[in-house]
Amino acid sequence: MKIGYIGTGIMGAPMALNLLRAGHEMFVYNRTISKCDSLKAAGAVVCDSPGAVAAKSDIVFINVPDTPDVQKVLFGDAGVIHAARAGLIVADNSTISAGATKEFAAKLKVVGVDYLDAPVSGGDVGAQKGTLAIMVGGEKEVFDKVLPLLEVLGSKVSLLGPVGSGQMCKACNQMFCTLHMQALCEAITLAENAGLDVAKMVDIVSGGAAGSWALSNLGPKILANDLEPAFMIDLLVKDLKLVMELAADARVAIPATAMAKQFFHAAEAKGLGSKGTQALIEVVRGLSK
Amino acid sequence: MKIGYIGTGIMGAPMALNLLRAGHEMFVYNRTISKCDSLKAAGAVVCDSPGAVAAKSDIVFINVPDTPDVQKVLFGDAGVIHAARAGLIVADNSTISAGATKEFAAKLKVVGVDYLDAPVSGGDVGAQKGTLAIMVGGEKEVFDKVLPLLEVLGSKVSLLGPVGSGQMCKACNQMFCTLHMQALCEAITLAENAGLDVAKMVDIVSGGAAGSWALSNLGPKILANDLEPAFMIDLLVKDLKLVMELAADARVAIPATAMAKQFFHAAEAKGLGSKGTQALIEVVRGLSK
Repeated sequence: MKIGYIGTGIMGAPMALNLLRAGHEMFVYNRTISKCDSLKAAGAVVCDSPGAVAAKSDIVFINVPDTPDVQKVLFGDAGVIHAARAGLIVADNSTISAGATKEFAAKLKVVGVDYLDAPVSGGDVGAQKGTLAIMVGGEKEVFDKVLPLLEVLGSKVSLLGPVGSGQMCKACNQMFCTLHMQALCEAITLAENAGLDVAKMVDIVSGGAAGSWALSNLGPKILANDLEPAFMIDLLVKDLKLVMELAADARVAIPATAMAKQFFHAAEAKGLGSKGTQALIEVVRGLSK
Repeated sequence: MKIGYIGTGIMGAPMALNLLRAGHEMFVYNRTISKCDSLKAAGAVVCDSPGAVAAKSDIVFINVPDTPDVQKVLFGDAGVIHAARAGLIVADNSTISAGATKEFAAKLKVVGVDYLDAPVSGGDVGAQKGTLAIMVGGEKEVFDKVLPLLEVLGSKVSLLGPVGSGQMCKACNQMFCTLHMQALCEAITLAENAGLDVAKMVDIVSGGAAGSWALSNLGPKILANDLEPAFMIDLLVKDLKLVMELAADARVAIPATAMAKQFFHAAEAKGLGSKGTQALIEVVRGLSK
């Protein structure tokens, strides 16, 4: 199959590579074109615009930072819309607004293009190993066509409902990531100050009812003082803005998520926006010294 | 070996049963004596006081609700202290104050009794299957003697440091449980109100970076409206009091834990104290309707 992948960053590049290795013909594009180098070396064709990718592909995946970026990829100069034709499918792996997603899908529908929102979770490691969780919104018929490819990218794939449902689910996903990280940073800070062996604490509690992906995967990074991003604080803050918008629209109070969001803002204020979410430890530690 | 088990409730009973099944001679006691029935049927000797258990055992386990309960078991009328002798070991599986634990251990040391704090995590299911995480504080020499028994009770056992370290670690553990439950309840409430298929959301996000023990084990209970206790809200509130004391002593700010504690107080105010921690959903849902 001819597959396009637009946005080959920390997540997109390994995901595109997995599709390539599964035997598909790949056409790729990235704003910073050098980020396509490893894919080019592996046999992908590097294109000079999203529209050029779409012209050559049966299915176009997108994986860019935010709602305006997806909008530009789809509807900007040399965007996907310029290569629109009946039968083309767009699958968006980005995490963006559920409301905007519905608008994008409706605009593309007019010109015969089918749309899935398919945000993912599982970090760079999940992207590399093809073990992501993929949350899909869209029509069953379209989902079924793309499913074999999604199963290359992830070990757990679920159609949640109509277009936008994947993004709503991802918003819920990010609430867990946010509060799990807050819990991790508060517990580590308490353990450090109470004189406990923190590495032993992180190891043992991960085996019981306190266990979480964050604890097992990001706890050791905090212990090693490794704050490099698997997932950047700036992106989580962007996602939390989407969460709060969704909650406000649904008239739902999510007080702990809202409070934890403030601490991630504090992390940005400290210049930690481009660090991994585990850099929240600097903020939480800073409260008590 | 001759083993005593004092406190045969939701956690203690299956733990004692696992030790019995491992081939040990068991002597048991519970304040409400009928809670020893299943152990008696399995071959345990039911005693009429903690002291009577201690008199017959090489190692006495304790698993009772709170600090004053452990104090009474150890030092009350017909308490363990009355059967104190050199070589007796007390291992406390309860979750109680780290400070009081150090005092208890010091008092018992005078009469030759060794002490381990060994609180556990993993819920009733972990207790039944012998897959608990066990967080131990005490001397290495004593730990090594009890380790084969702890390995019957749990799949992950760690000596954190001197007496009290197990309880400090358990306090950290409960911070995770608290905030993970808050995250679960906020995410489910948002999903419900946003019109998402909540069961599908819980299932898919458990497979990615949002995954947690709470999500996988208690998420489905919330979906099934099963609020029966694996671990009671009243007990978590008791544990959170210990957490806040430990944090205050260490001069550590744990703002999200402190906020979530308030919602568990609200759950108690609603009469949900004897329900499982997942009954927090009633409080969080109640905020938005």
